[in-house]
Amino acid sequence: MKTKTQVAIIGSGPSGLLLGQLLNKAGIDNIIVERVSPDYILGRIRAGILEQGFVDLVREAGVNQRMDEEGHVHDGFDIAYYGKRYRIDLNKLTEGSTVMCYGQTEITRDLMAARDAAGLTSFYESQDVQLHNVASDSPQVTLFKDGETITIDCDYIAGCDGFHGISRQTIPAEKRTEHERVYPFGWLGLLADVPPVSDELIYCKTERGFALASMRSATRSRYYLQVPLTDKVENWSDEAFWDELKKRLPEDSASNLITGPSIEKSIAPLRSFVCEPMQWGNLYLVGDAAHIVPPTGAKGLNLAASDVSTLYKLLQKRYAHGDLTAPQRYSEIALRRVWHGERFSWWMSNMLHDFEQGEVNGMHKATFDRFMQSELDFYLTHEEGQKVIARQYVGMPYEEVN
Amino acid sequence: MKTKTQVAIIGSGPSGLLLGQLLNKAGIDNIIVERVSPDYILGRIRAGILEQGFVDLVREAGVNQRMDEEGHVHDGFDIAYYGKRYRIDLNKLTEGSTVMCYGQTEITRDLMAARDAAGLTSFYESQDVQLHNVASDSPQVTLFKDGETITIDCDYIAGCDGFHGISRQTIPAEKRTEHERVYPFGWLGLLADVPPVSDELIYCKTERGFALASMRSATRSRYYLQVPLTDKVENWSDEAFWDELKKRLPEDSASNLITGPSIEKSIAPLRSFVCEPMQWGNLYLVGDAAHIVPPTGAKGLNLAASDVSTLYKLLQKRYAHGDLTAPQRYSEIALRRVWHGERFSWWMSNMLHDFEQGEVNGMHKATFDRFMQSELDFYLTHEEGQKVIARQYVGMPYEEVN
Repeated sequence: MKTKTQVAIIGSGPSGLLLGQLLNKAGIDNIIVERVSPDYILGRIRAGILEQGFVDLVREAGVNQRMDEEGHVHDGFDIAYYGKRYRIDLNKLTEGSTVMCYGQTEITRDLMAARDAAGLTSFYESQDVQLHNVASDSPQVTLFKDGETITIDCDYIAGCDGFHGISRQTIPAEKRTEHERVYPFGWLGLLADVPPVSDELIYCKTERGFALASMRSATRSRYYLQVPLTDKVENWSDEAFWDELKKRLPEDSASNLITGPSIEKSIAPLRSFVCEPMQWGNLYLVGDAAHIVPPTGAKGLNLAASDVSTLYKLLQKRYAHGDLTAPQRYSEIALRRVWHGERFSWWMSNMLHDFEQGEVNGMHKATFDRFMQSELDFYLTHEEGQKVIARQYVGMPYEEVN
Repeated sequence: MKTKTQVAIIGSGPSGLLLGQLLNKAGIDNIIVERVSPDYILGRIRAGILEQGFVDLVREAGVNQRMDEEGHVHDGFDIAYYGKRYRIDLNKLTEGSTVMCYGQTEITRDLMAARDAAGLTSFYESQDVQLHNVASDSPQVTLFKDGETITIDCDYIAGCDGFHGISRQTIPAEKRTEHERVYPFGWLGLLADVPPVSDELIYCKTERGFALASMRSATRSRYYLQVPLTDKVENWSDEAFWDELKKRLPEDSASNLITGPSIEKSIAPLRSFVCEPMQWGNLYLVGDAAHIVPPTGAKGLNLAASDVSTLYKLLQKRYAHGDLTAPQRYSEIALRRVWHGERFSWWMSNMLHDFEQGEVNGMHKATFDRFMQSELDFYLTHEEGQKVIARQYVGMPYEEVN
């Protein structure tokens, strides 16, 4: 079977779906190609803190009804530094900006429903997806599904298929530079249907390592513990997790913690990664396909959204205003904000985790620890420092596209 | 010969002299012991940007007349980032704080004159200076001068004798932890009697490496170039220096640069260093004896002054208020501010220099460069970021001593 579209979107996660919805509203035809099933995607546990820019973009896509009803605005968050709590009052420090707590899974569900309702084409459970002639003016996507090969002719391909997807791999190795930093620890996450210990997030720097108290809703909690990379999730019973979490939370929180059976428990590594440039020919990498951040600071999904915003605006220029070369500016525009997010996530990760003995960032651990203690001390106890944290946490404005 | 005093001060640089002057005004007897001659000390080329706290301390010591007449208040400084100038308006960003430009050599000269006028004892050109029984209640300093051994009995010893002095070495190795970071480049400095290219400092980040346009007065300029550690000062003619400087200054400055023969030219390595604790028994380390910063950010002399302030206040408590254990709190109080200065200098150095190929701070140079470019981009283009730079540059308030 052969078909055609203006933009082929690889990947039906929140980036691909949001881009598809926005393009459709702007009259730009698109097809989504996805390797797995919708249920598989909705079974993934992901982040839930949305920057204002993301919220606005979801509203622009017209898929905001449930988010606005069920999402919780967070005016701030806490950093507990060896037991002492400091509040980062986002609303006050940024003069009015906040973030919204609404699970990525729910966003994805809403976007899938909207796409279904609009009757747009998505090929789920596509096998052997391949991108062809992406450096030419007539790129193609091929896939195998239900016993036949489907060929999609398109103008552009948006690679929204994540870190392990084929889009980035399609760019010849000599045409891209990959920046990577792997951290010597992971996050053990636990999801449970218990009320969260706090209305807002608590990032905990402790002598036992980092912990994060987070949530998906008023009745569903998400907690994390820094663990060695060598650790196995099988070694962590629910009881062991809750015990360790209590030791890392500030005392008043630990004594109010409500525990319960885990719905999900897993260990994720922490990685900083950027592929430069984020495009090749008519293939554009969006979100995790181009960059990964450690989760400290909740920037992963939000950076994907700013990529979507940039690509969407450039494709509008291309199709609505006839600016044929507009999409070529994508990587340059997107990367500035990507690096801000990468740097902020790296900085938050460095400050809040306990590194293993030995060399850390080119110095002895004890020296690095002193620098980071001083950093937290300065940034948490000075309004100027709190404002720098707050400004980056709520997210900088999306880049203008002129 | 035997003599006695309350506080023996090792080193007659600005820290030792300022401490001596302050103690004397508070009625606390002190003797300075110095290895070299006053002229040798006054021949050293040193920094010239004084924080408000330092200026206030010099005023408290009553040695401010010439500083107030000849020093220049700087309301701000510039950072030129690949040719684009950003002004850090210290006065505005900190709501009224500034720094003063007045050469360390001049401060030292003023303090020496004041000490002479007050008739206080200083042993210059002391040979074989040794500290004894510093962990006991009866420390002694011995030295050899003019053919005889002089023994000074004292209550306390203030080690103001710099990085290579004997004070820190007197602390047993197992009683101290030394943190060190050596940078893979040096600063080639040139002093010349020409009007400075700008009224205030310009820190230049360029693809050719870092440069700094600084001054000692309206007619004496001090310029610096980042050079490889392997470079030799003999390889740099004055002409070569000026040529390279012009390439690193912003264009409008380069075209206004007035050159002239150098008075002095030398290469200094860059080092971050802290000795913890900054005391042992009744020996207290002050300034460079305990800590070194890279010169980026002008914190070296200023951190020494905050040590002086802390030790002076604690000794006052001891002698004027009978708080016998007050001096023991010195290291803990001093170190907090020291680490802030260390961290700021390290951060400024990381951001503004060009590192050699290979690993930088635990990552590939290209990745590190991207992080630092993003850091400069964020901090220079956001008021919150500029305020964080400004607050640290003018210096945080001296620690309270209760």
